[in-house]
Amino acid sequence: MAAIPTTAEDRLSGLGIPLPDAPTPFGAYVPAVQTGNLLFLSGMLATSGHTATVVGVVGLGLDVNAGREAAYTAALNVLSPTKQQLGSLNRVAQVVRLGVYVAATPEFTEHAKVADAASELLRDVFGDGTISSRLVLGVASLPFGSPVELEVILEVKP
Amino acid sequence: MAAIPTTAEDRLSGLGIPLPDAPTPFGAYVPAVQTGNLLFLSGMLATSGHTATVVGVVGLGLDVNAGREAAYTAALNVLSPTKQQLGSLNRVAQVVRLGVYVAATPEFTEHAKVADAASELLRDVFGDGTISSRLVLGVASLPFGSPVELEVILEVKP
Amino acid sequence: MAAIPTTAEDRLSGLGIPLPDAPTPFGAYVPAVQTGNLLFLSGMLATSGHTATVVGVVGLGLDVNAGREAAYTAALNVLSPTKQQLGSLNRVAQVVRLGVYVAATPEFTEHAKVADAASELLRDVFGDGTISSRLVLGVASLPFGSPVELEVILEVKP
Repeated sequence: MAAIPTTAEDRLSGLGIPLPDAPTPFGAYVPAVQTGNLLFLSGMLATSGHTATVVGVVGLGLDVNAGREAAYTAALNVLSPTKQQLGSLNRVAQVVRLGVYVAATPEFTEHAKVADAASELLRDVFGDGTISSRLVLGVASLPFGSPVELEVILEVKP
Repeated sequence: MAAIPTTAEDRLSGLGIPLPDAPTPFGAYVPAVQTGNLLFLSGMLATSGHTATVVGVVGLGLDVNAGREAAYTAALNVLSPTKQQLGSLNRVAQVVRLGVYVAATPEFTEHAKVADAASELLRDVFGDGTISSRLVLGVASLPFGSPVELEVILEVKP
Repeated sequence: MAAIPTTAEDRLSGLGIPLPDAPTPFGAYVPAVQTGNLLFLSGMLATSGHTATVVGVVGLGLDVNAGREAAYTAALNVLSPTKQQLGSLNRVAQVVRLGVYVAATPEFTEHAKVADAASELLRDVFGDGTISSRLVLGVASLPFGSPVELEVILEVKP
């Protein structure tokens, strides 16, 4: 019987999810800035390289499931620069805050279901012991037409 | 003559406002995460339990006063988990940042008046000595149709 | 030959840009709150005094260049209260996070180009050694009809 994985890297391996290359910035910013033991990551989109994997507004052309897929893709795009920045995901002490911004219609109400696809991946990787606080907003539009953008603040182990 | 209240709990008692039960999360997140002496609270809506107390967009079906009521309700929903998390509101050293997100039309301009209803309650409870920094945005839509969402970062006394 | 400026104040002088008066708050908040060595600045708009220098939505009445001008104006409105708060821009250790909120249509995709006008000014003043992390969102509307709002977290030198 396999041992229960106890580190973020082991959990990610156990999930069998290959990380994409860390997205390079779309402008005059860097992927992450550390101050003290807080790591502020830049907004991550549902992109592969510099192209959105899906374009549109949830509640109009895209349904909740399409939004969830975009949130999942963006969450992988959070993990890649985190690993690049810290060397190992095991250095994450806790996920302090997750911002989930969903391009959505004025009538849309199920933002939380879209956001959960990102929250669940972060929980599966970083473990039940660190579930983030969260902000979820429906916005007018996002860079490159991505339906979801994520913003994460991490606490780094000393 | 009554003494001027000097703690947040005394000021809240003096205002005669009963706190609602702390809202339970609408998904895979927790109400608050503390890192060092900063407490990051999740986005709080104008809800009672898991139901929005008012639904709509400010500038369309809702006017400024309806938005202010929603902001006030959401601010009470910030106080409850703060007390639950810290044991007492007296442990708040200062309100570092208040984010006020108003579901609003593209033509709406009076977001600050809506936001002030939340800011004024926080000031009345935490005192004139700690007025927050603030971000106010008009967004497309918010979870469950709430017209207002609040996000607070607090500094906790050691 | 002039020496290469090595402080933020010298770089700002070298750019020949006069800082506007620090904008006074539009409601019950303060321009900035410091906690530990982090300075949280309130959202800054494209305003002069209490009037928006330009009003509108990018992608509708305003094009990318008009959005960039608004972002530049808002960035000057970040520098002023920073200097007021800290006494000197030289006390900024690094720009931790820049939030750029663009009032934009659902179809707009070039938010990053608008945001770069703010990022470039901050980089020109604070130097290549501190480029911020960044969040860019397209929102429905902003206070007073401003097309851009900026939110900055700074690390202050001890």
